[in-house]
Amino acid sequence: MLNVGVIGAGVMGGFHARLFATGIGGARLAAVSDADPARAEAAAAGGEVFADGLDLIASDAVDAVLIAAPDAAHHDLVLAAIAAGKPVLCEKPLAATAAECRQIVAADARGLVTVGFMRRFDPAYRDMRAALEAGQAGVPLLLDCAHRNQSVPPWFSGPMIVTNAMVHEIDICRWILGAEYISVRITQVGDAGDLLLAELATDRGTVVRIEVFMNAAYGYQIETRLVGRGGTLVMAEPVLGRVRRAGVESQPFPPDWIGRFADSYRLQDQAWADAARAGTRAPGAATARDGLFATDYCDQIVAIMTGGGAGVLQAPQ
Amino acid sequence: MLNVGVIGAGVMGGFHARLFATGIGGARLAAVSDADPARAEAAAAGGEVFADGLDLIASDAVDAVLIAAPDAAHHDLVLAAIAAGKPVLCEKPLAATAAECRQIVAADARGLVTVGFMRRFDPAYRDMRAALEAGQAGVPLLLDCAHRNQSVPPWFSGPMIVTNAMVHEIDICRWILGAEYISVRITQVGDAGDLLLAELATDRGTVVRIEVFMNAAYGYQIETRLVGRGGTLVMAEPVLGRVRRAGVESQPFPPDWIGRFADSYRLQDQAWADAARAGTRAPGAATARDGLFATDYCDQIVAIMTGGGAGVLQAPQ
Amino acid sequence: MLNVGVIGAGVMGGFHARLFATGIGGARLAAVSDADPARAEAAAAGGEVFADGLDLIASDAVDAVLIAAPDAAHHDLVLAAIAAGKPVLCEKPLAATAAECRQIVAADARGLVTVGFMRRFDPAYRDMRAALEAGQAGVPLLLDCAHRNQSVPPWFSGPMIVTNAMVHEIDICRWILGAEYISVRITQVGDAGDLLLAELATDRGTVVRIEVFMNAAYGYQIETRLVGRGGTLVMAEPVLGRVRRAGVESQPFPPDWIGRFADSYRLQDQAWADAARAGTRAPGAATARDGLFATDYCDQIVAIMTGGGAGVLQAPQ
Amino acid sequence: MLNVGVIGAGVMGGFHARLFATGIGGARLAAVSDADPARAEAAAAGGEVFADGLDLIASDAVDAVLIAAPDAAHHDLVLAAIAAGKPVLCEKPLAATAAECRQIVAADARGLVTVGFMRRFDPAYRDMRAALEAGQAGVPLLLDCAHRNQSVPPWFSGPMIVTNAMVHEIDICRWILGAEYISVRITQVGDAGDLLLAELATDRGTVVRIEVFMNAAYGYQIETRLVGRGGTLVMAEPVLGRVRRAGVESQPFPPDWIGRFADSYRLQDQAWADAARAGTRAPGAATARDGLFATDYCDQIVAIMTGGGAGVLQAPQ
Repeated sequence: MLNVGVIGAGVMGGFHARLFATGIGGARLAAVSDADPARAEAAAAGGEVFADGLDLIASDAVDAVLIAAPDAAHHDLVLAAIAAGKPVLCEKPLAATAAECRQIVAADARGLVTVGFMRRFDPAYRDMRAALEAGQAGVPLLLDCAHRNQSVPPWFSGPMIVTNAMVHEIDICRWILGAEYISVRITQVGDAGDLLLAELATDRGTVVRIEVFMNAAYGYQIETRLVGRGGTLVMAEPVLGRVRRAGVESQPFPPDWIGRFADSYRLQDQAWADAARAGTRAPGAATARDGLFATDYCDQIVAIMTGGGAGVLQAPQ
Repeated sequence: MLNVGVIGAGVMGGFHARLFATGIGGARLAAVSDADPARAEAAAAGGEVFADGLDLIASDAVDAVLIAAPDAAHHDLVLAAIAAGKPVLCEKPLAATAAECRQIVAADARGLVTVGFMRRFDPAYRDMRAALEAGQAGVPLLLDCAHRNQSVPPWFSGPMIVTNAMVHEIDICRWILGAEYISVRITQVGDAGDLLLAELATDRGTVVRIEVFMNAAYGYQIETRLVGRGGTLVMAEPVLGRVRRAGVESQPFPPDWIGRFADSYRLQDQAWADAARAGTRAPGAATARDGLFATDYCDQIVAIMTGGGAGVLQAPQ
Repeated sequence: MLNVGVIGAGVMGGFHARLFATGIGGARLAAVSDADPARAEAAAAGGEVFADGLDLIASDAVDAVLIAAPDAAHHDLVLAAIAAGKPVLCEKPLAATAAECRQIVAADARGLVTVGFMRRFDPAYRDMRAALEAGQAGVPLLLDCAHRNQSVPPWFSGPMIVTNAMVHEIDICRWILGAEYISVRITQVGDAGDLLLAELATDRGTVVRIEVFMNAAYGYQIETRLVGRGGTLVMAEPVLGRVRRAGVESQPFPPDWIGRFADSYRLQDQAWADAARAGTRAPGAATARDGLFATDYCDQIVAIMTGGGAGVLQAPQ
Repeated sequence: MLNVGVIGAGVMGGFHARLFATGIGGARLAAVSDADPARAEAAAAGGEVFADGLDLIASDAVDAVLIAAPDAAHHDLVLAAIAAGKPVLCEKPLAATAAECRQIVAADARGLVTVGFMRRFDPAYRDMRAALEAGQAGVPLLLDCAHRNQSVPPWFSGPMIVTNAMVHEIDICRWILGAEYISVRITQVGDAGDLLLAELATDRGTVVRIEVFMNAAYGYQIETRLVGRGGTLVMAEPVLGRVRRAGVESQPFPPDWIGRFADSYRLQDQAWADAARAGTRAPGAATARDGLFATDYCDQIVAIMTGGGAGVLQAPQ
């Protein structure tokens, strides 16, 4: 039984804590830390409570650590977990800056670090990647993604759209294609600039197109399509049922990512816990290096977006 | 942490054992029993091994029992678990005969017994039931079900189609509608008689139509549609992606129930384990009485099918 | 250029008149007759106007006749068209009684009569029939139909559901399967009896199931599914687009048959006109004999429905 | 009855000739011209035959002219039809060069010219435009189009992809949005450069993205999606039925445009003929000015594609 400590009891930390308390086989929620002790206690479900994440990492009651603290704290916490020799699953981003990510990559010789890009455990993304590898699409030419959110507050501005939302596509498209980005062109659409279009060239010839629209109004939706020389793959969306009523047949969209990806988080956390118990890594999980790449690419993209909209991307060193 | 013992290490027992060994939060696989010790050992994944299920039930290492033994053994095993005061999840059927089921119902005063009608935990069925309760369809008039299997051996004959396959619809339609059956008409279609049509009247006025086709060739598929006076509900099927290739867009069917219901078993086992730890019952789970009803209705339907194809159904006493 | 006369300027007559006035190649609307001269004049779009359909049939200005008069008048009008040697397309039913239909069959030695079962020209039905003939489904076991209407007035009662609505399935299922009915079982569902279920056995072993629901509330919809030993065929519905808005993705249903079958009528009228000009018959069109079969089967079904719900059907002589 | 003369008896001319011979109400095929007299005769279906399109235009037997001659001949033929005062429907392009188009625009004071952008009569495009106008999507931000062809010969090279294929999107997106293009960026994907991506800014703020892939292998398909601030509209594709067989449910793609747009041509030709008879213009049909715009935009895009991939577009004067 793997004793898991969760650092941070906000929305994401509370979500993971509930998973480990009730829904992950072979693991149990041993401890929660949060600067707010009441919040930590509520999330701990009877487990130990810490005010400081570093104390949680040090505790003998904790075998493995999940970090859902504020971004700025990731760097120190991840390094502490590495130093303690404990497997760590860190919510994205791996760290607040690419420089910090680089330090983590350098420190993680044993491969203890996993970054929480949960889409890599989503059955629909896995299915698309497997179909591509099985040759169903032939040579991939275009990977076309849409990422729509119902609405965000006004302060969720341009750079955040890249670093908080598009970062998921930046990681998952690399993973599907096994390719690195070499250039990008960004278009901001509409007065509010809340619809971003990115076109990225990759070193394997496939072009990646990404639409991110944070105020799509109708709900949360991910669309992904891979056009190859031999065929086209279209990701399906989870649908439980359709209602025929008042002149239409309708199917609902979830209001946010929970309806689309809650089960991907569960699968990720289960696979991570299984691997942590076995002293291995979950196949396909994002490494510290993947976390560095995601952060660094996003930083480059934000700079290019600010500077004119098109530019060369360098694979991080 | 709930220590679960699994009785029977065949296809279903092995499936549940793997779930409790690796995929159910708050529970662990403590023991497996099987007449074949090698099979039990392989399934136990390091847990204790018993040759006799009664010994497993009696063991202090076991808090709760999952029964996936041959049908004929269910009765004695379930009664032993009740006598030991341990929660028990019994694969369908609850027992080999309605008379045996009745004894279990009489013995289960504390409500320790759950019958493994896993569709009650399937998100799509839950969604349909919730939509009906929310008034989306108005008064339900017709519940229309198809249950198709790729292929079965020739000895999978008429009565087995009812007791092994249609039994799932018999249970789940009662559960969706909150109704009891009052009559049935059966039609066997085709030379092989492997496509059965049933039309059941219920005490709430809704008619249930069931098509079961065990040799549908193309794959395993469940279709369910509820026609009401205010609207119609259509259950969707899980689809991960579609492939456009060689002139068609296609989406796969699973070859058997695993592709459709594996996650429903997980959700069932998780909910059962959660409830067992809490000393309660999982909401919506099938009781011993539900198990009796399913077995008794199926026996009545088989008799009617043999005797002419139409007849009155009595709610079991 | 074929000069077409339309008898009857009600809903259906007006619909056909507009088609021949503006949308059928190689034909033109030459004349319209109706007891109401203003209605006839409005529909004639500049063509000749007759008060009496028999005069229209006799007119030299008319090469071919479309009958959309009240049912009771069909018999005399069709016989007059046959006597005049003019091709005639008669809206269903061919005549008000099977006896009258028999007289028409006897009189129509030259095959001048076509009955307006327009589904035979619907591309989706043609596609299903062609797929069956191409062996895509193997041996057909079950042909499953639903026919739902938004709403009807209370006087649209039990027998009318058979003779006015289900008659379309009675004809089209014979046509798809190339089979005759040998027995039927009818179930009336709900207090209002406005949802009818029919299960028909055929002489080729395929079972036909029909649901007709005249007050389905959500809109007009036809669903058809053919389950065979080698595969299953599912008819699709015409959809122009989907709207994602306010939490759902929706696609509209038409409020009545026009949205689903208007183009089938056009294709039927075009094929009939083409054949009339060529002195042949449109392939697949319903003959006088098909019209007799539809009427006679419906009469038998109504009698069986009244008398108990199950009985033997005789192919008309 | 409108007497239509068709100039050119190749693939498109033959297609239109058959339509006017058999499928357009209120019109008939009066004449066909082609340099190859046998081909003209075969297409004429009994109508008059001309070797020279100018003679056909001049003939008293012809009320209206459809031009499906080689592109280079369009200019002279359209001007001749204008001079003769006869309505003319010219297959795209209106003329071989923008300069020629401009002469036609100048000459067509009476609005006799229609350009055959048949998508404007396609029910799915009309539905999307109507939904946008009805406010279903709110302010349109992104119009996203894919245009895929099964395969083309190697000589169907870069510029032709714009002028022969993408030209349809260039016209229809202007029509849907009521907007003019102000800039474009082109990306050629893959070694063969047979997948083109275009991103066009418009003067109303909406961005148009177009993927054209001439060797998509799986079949012919058009995808169109309009993302607005209030909702998203998704164009559906015509589907007649689905086959469940051998592990998959599949629906076919047509091998070429005929399966997708044959009926749009019929609706266009019918609307054009109706308007020609009435002395008006078909609502929504492309004018000479629209034809100029399509040709001129495509010329500008080809020049930009050759010169670097991004540039400003000028609305034609």
